[in-house]
Amino acid sequence: MAAALSLAERGVGRTGQNPSVGCIIVKDERVIGRGWTQPGGRPHAEAMALAQAGEAARGSKIYVTLEPCAHISQRGPACAQLLAEAEPARVVIALQDPDPRTAGSGIMLLKAAGIAVTTDVMVSEARKSLAGFISRMNRGRPFVTLKIASSLDGQIAMADGSSRWITGDVARAHSHVERARADAILVGAGTVRMDTPQLNVRIAGLDAYQPRKIMLGSADAPKGWEVIRTPQDIANLDCNTLLVEGGAATSAAFLRDGLVDRLVLYRAPILLGAGKACLNDIGLTQLQDAHGRWQLSDARSLGRDRFEDYEKAN
Amino acid sequence: MAAALSLAERGVGRTGQNPSVGCIIVKDERVIGRGWTQPGGRPHAEAMALAQAGEAARGSKIYVTLEPCAHISQRGPACAQLLAEAEPARVVIALQDPDPRTAGSGIMLLKAAGIAVTTDVMVSEARKSLAGFISRMNRGRPFVTLKIASSLDGQIAMADGSSRWITGDVARAHSHVERARADAILVGAGTVRMDTPQLNVRIAGLDAYQPRKIMLGSADAPKGWEVIRTPQDIANLDCNTLLVEGGAATSAAFLRDGLVDRLVLYRAPILLGAGKACLNDIGLTQLQDAHGRWQLSDARSLGRDRFEDYEKAN
Repeated sequence: MAAALSLAERGVGRTGQNPSVGCIIVKDERVIGRGWTQPGGRPHAEAMALAQAGEAARGSKIYVTLEPCAHISQRGPACAQLLAEAEPARVVIALQDPDPRTAGSGIMLLKAAGIAVTTDVMVSEARKSLAGFISRMNRGRPFVTLKIASSLDGQIAMADGSSRWITGDVARAHSHVERARADAILVGAGTVRMDTPQLNVRIAGLDAYQPRKIMLGSADAPKGWEVIRTPQDIANLDCNTLLVEGGAATSAAFLRDGLVDRLVLYRAPILLGAGKACLNDIGLTQLQDAHGRWQLSDARSLGRDRFEDYEKAN
Repeated sequence: MAAALSLAERGVGRTGQNPSVGCIIVKDERVIGRGWTQPGGRPHAEAMALAQAGEAARGSKIYVTLEPCAHISQRGPACAQLLAEAEPARVVIALQDPDPRTAGSGIMLLKAAGIAVTTDVMVSEARKSLAGFISRMNRGRPFVTLKIASSLDGQIAMADGSSRWITGDVARAHSHVERARADAILVGAGTVRMDTPQLNVRIAGLDAYQPRKIMLGSADAPKGWEVIRTPQDIANLDCNTLLVEGGAATSAAFLRDGLVDRLVLYRAPILLGAGKACLNDIGLTQLQDAHGRWQLSDARSLGRDRFEDYEKAN
């Protein structure tokens, strides 16, 4: 299942409204099929892996990170049906599909076909892997990551607005990988006006991972950009993962509305003093209310800079 | 020498104008004497260790973290003279004394007495251990550590000034150990007025490690406090190590004057948004000038909080 989850990572940020799923087919202790959700969402991971395995899939053991879909789509056959027809000995599933069109019926279809099914394997890892899709299904909005690149004293620019460069090459490359994993990137109208950021992924080999560009605000956006008026409007973006890259007003607006699920901080070993703070008012009235909201999940050095990853505490 | 350096740590913050030195006497592979500079600066480490070893010091090997003093003092005999009279086979010295009254003459006195002398052992560790004394000797001012306890976004208080508590118990205990290692603690007049901080060491077993309390400003200070008018006046404090604990104006004033040698950051996993920033203007005019000044030397978790230790880069 760990290998299947690893395959699923290949699709994160590129599968549109589909979840990025990984699938491995094993027979006689050999891997005979590997699949992951393809760009745009099709073929599904199971279809890709089954195509590789061919007839050999009969009697095999199939690992898949999400319950195979059971609903009929115009874009292809249901994976649960495909799996049943391949007659594996067992299907091992990490998570039940939160999509109400499947939600257990994929598992039922497999069992009805006489195939042994194991569920709830590496659930927490799978939840993390599928966080975007789960968020869209259960909460009707994408999983939101807020990125802040600042000095040690929490400033994102000098008082005159200059901010090139605060963090170094390694941290910037890391932040481009975060971009590649997002379906869409959002910045505020002020940032668009000041910086006209490209928001693209500038890493060799990841050229195909270019997220949608979203502007928060009421101004006209440059060509190729989409515009939303309020943070709540992310519900209409119909995407799984959103990366918010500031500035201070936009970041604060998302925090104020409780719409940030993960916080990634890049901090350069510099002090700026009176510059531009990373956040405006986030609507906090009492200090004690600030506690218990964030939990460190990763901390490391990236070149001279520090990286920290915080998840929502509950 | 590592053991001697470890003994020297016991005196840091308690030896007044004297360096905190460690001394170990070894004979036939057994430790027969251990000493460290005593509170107030006397007895010296060598005197303490020699008193333990007694006659057995003859023919021994003596490790000391700083060149033994050679100048005559009304407070006790010169250590180089004491060592020579004990007739050890060899004296191993980490650092030459930067005090111009000794500065090599302790080593010369030992050699003239026919004792073998090894110098420059674990020099960088010894420089760190004796950073305060070296700073006072070479630069005429204490080694200055700036402590900042903030939220992830660099705020040290809510907009209304409330700041109890940002960091948790473990971080606070750690910061009290930092206090115990300081000869003096300094805060600005604004902090004194707002918080009337105790600035004492509240850790069981460290009751005797209470630093002097210094206020920066022109207001009247509470009883038991000393007052200086400008950061440059720390030269008159005649102490080895100074811990600056804010607030934003005071921290910025020390940074602006280039008087901070080490930065210790305690960061709680909280966001405050528009509160009180940890620093005022530090006199930076170009972003690029901020780079290259600080180098991470330690990073770890303290309970839920993060601790980072930065040293001046050159």
